[in-house]
Amino acid sequence: MIIIGELVNATRKSIAEAIEKKDRDYIKKVVLKQIEAGAHYIDLNAGTGKGQEREISDMKWLMDIVNEIGEIPVCVDSSDPIVIGECLDRIKSKDRMINSINGENKRIEELLPVIKRNNECKIIGLTMDDSGIPVNVEKRIEITGKIVKLLEDTGVLRENIFIDPLVQPISVDVKNGMIFLESIRMIKKEFPGIKTTCGLSNVSFGLPKRKLLNKYFLALSIAFGLDSAIIDPVDEGMREVICVSEALTGKDEYCMNYIKMCRQSS
Amino acid sequence: MIIIGELVNATRKSIAEAIEKKDRDYIKKVVLKQIEAGAHYIDLNAGTGKGQEREISDMKWLMDIVNEIGEIPVCVDSSDPIVIGECLDRIKSKDRMINSINGENKRIEELLPVIKRNNECKIIGLTMDDSGIPVNVEKRIEITGKIVKLLEDTGVLRENIFIDPLVQPISVDVKNGMIFLESIRMIKKEFPGIKTTCGLSNVSFGLPKRKLLNKYFLALSIAFGLDSAIIDPVDEGMREVICVSEALTGKDEYCMNYIKMCRQSS
Repeated sequence: MIIIGELVNATRKSIAEAIEKKDRDYIKKVVLKQIEAGAHYIDLNAGTGKGQEREISDMKWLMDIVNEIGEIPVCVDSSDPIVIGECLDRIKSKDRMINSINGENKRIEELLPVIKRNNECKIIGLTMDDSGIPVNVEKRIEITGKIVKLLEDTGVLRENIFIDPLVQPISVDVKNGMIFLESIRMIKKEFPGIKTTCGLSNVSFGLPKRKLLNKYFLALSIAFGLDSAIIDPVDEGMREVICVSEALTGKDEYCMNYIKMCRQSS
Repeated sequence: MIIIGELVNATRKSIAEAIEKKDRDYIKKVVLKQIEAGAHYIDLNAGTGKGQEREISDMKWLMDIVNEIGEIPVCVDSSDPIVIGECLDRIKSKDRMINSINGENKRIEELLPVIKRNNECKIIGLTMDDSGIPVNVEKRIEITGKIVKLLEDTGVLRENIFIDPLVQPISVDVKNGMIFLESIRMIKKEFPGIKTTCGLSNVSFGLPKRKLLNKYFLALSIAFGLDSAIIDPVDEGMREVICVSEALTGKDEYCMNYIKMCRQSS
């Protein structure tokens, strides 16, 4: 399971404040504790809605902190292709990820030139297009096909494409959970070699005990073929779920990681 | 989720003792607390290995206690077809289950006449035959086909057939978890209308923190199409897993049961 640490995101109040106050130590601490907890990529998002110039300057500031720590794999998370381009030029690590492209024509048009210049990057592709987020599995597969073709034509290797079928809340429609899970299964089946990812907490939006739902939904997603997740890696509960699910679904040879986890926690 | 309460089983020391001492009150208490906890069927097993005569007499004794409570749906659990036949004649409830038939020729030959006389019964069918428990999904589907044909030819309705694809420990082979899950999915796909069930705790045999593995494996099984489980219904953790999994997989309209559970536990 490839873990993308989600904590450095300006939509979180503590991060927005740290960016505002230019509190390098706080950001550094949040990055480091995610790495220690097993994050493979550190998502960086400075989108405070204050415009491109401000976002570029904030992202560069975040980037410099991460570069100072070392060659840390970064996931550049912005709705602005210019911001993504500027950030990619600045990352020290050769292993980096773009978050994200989707099937919208405008997004493709603006982001594709950036991807062309950085086609060794890993790229998250969201299954939505100009008609919004599809209500069924079939349309998600169709958009996946469009994104995969575009990216492969631009020189991106299939193994570097991470498709996120965008889970919608079960409180809105109780079918949303299975639509997501079946999408994961079908994407893995229809596009061999492709990877899947998601930010799964949306599944529990509007319901009580969200962490409980999120944990079990992560387990189900792993069983249906999820390769990666954008989560809080510091959350021990989430790490436990990943370990248990990998053992149950044949991804943990001789259950060695599971047994190790049990020993450490006892 | 159809819950078969597993607690009245002579392989459990406290039950063996209660049978030995003819402690009616204890058995009655165990039956009642399973019903209160939501069990739909009460599994009764008196197989102490002391022979047919003793098993028949012990089973009749158990049966009488259950009948005294009322028309409780019972799951008659014995390796001896004669015992099963005798018990079925004695159950008050019209809703009863046989645990179990499988693909072994001897078992079929002996149990089929009993089923013919009681073909309104629900029947658990295990995917094993004279070659043992299969190591792959395909063979499990093949045995399912054989059992389904035999039972339907005997007048059993498909909706009353519960196939158990027999989960094997992941400590023996890490692929065993996915083999079981894929079997569940394929059985539901290949035999529309059929039900699936299992006694899932075998998955964690030989590993630490078995309850943790069992809980998550139950969740995964529900997502792959498990309709029923032979479990300890008194275990609050198990009930929570069922409730959460049903909400996540579209089986809990408007998440009403989930919300109710959260209210009760807070």
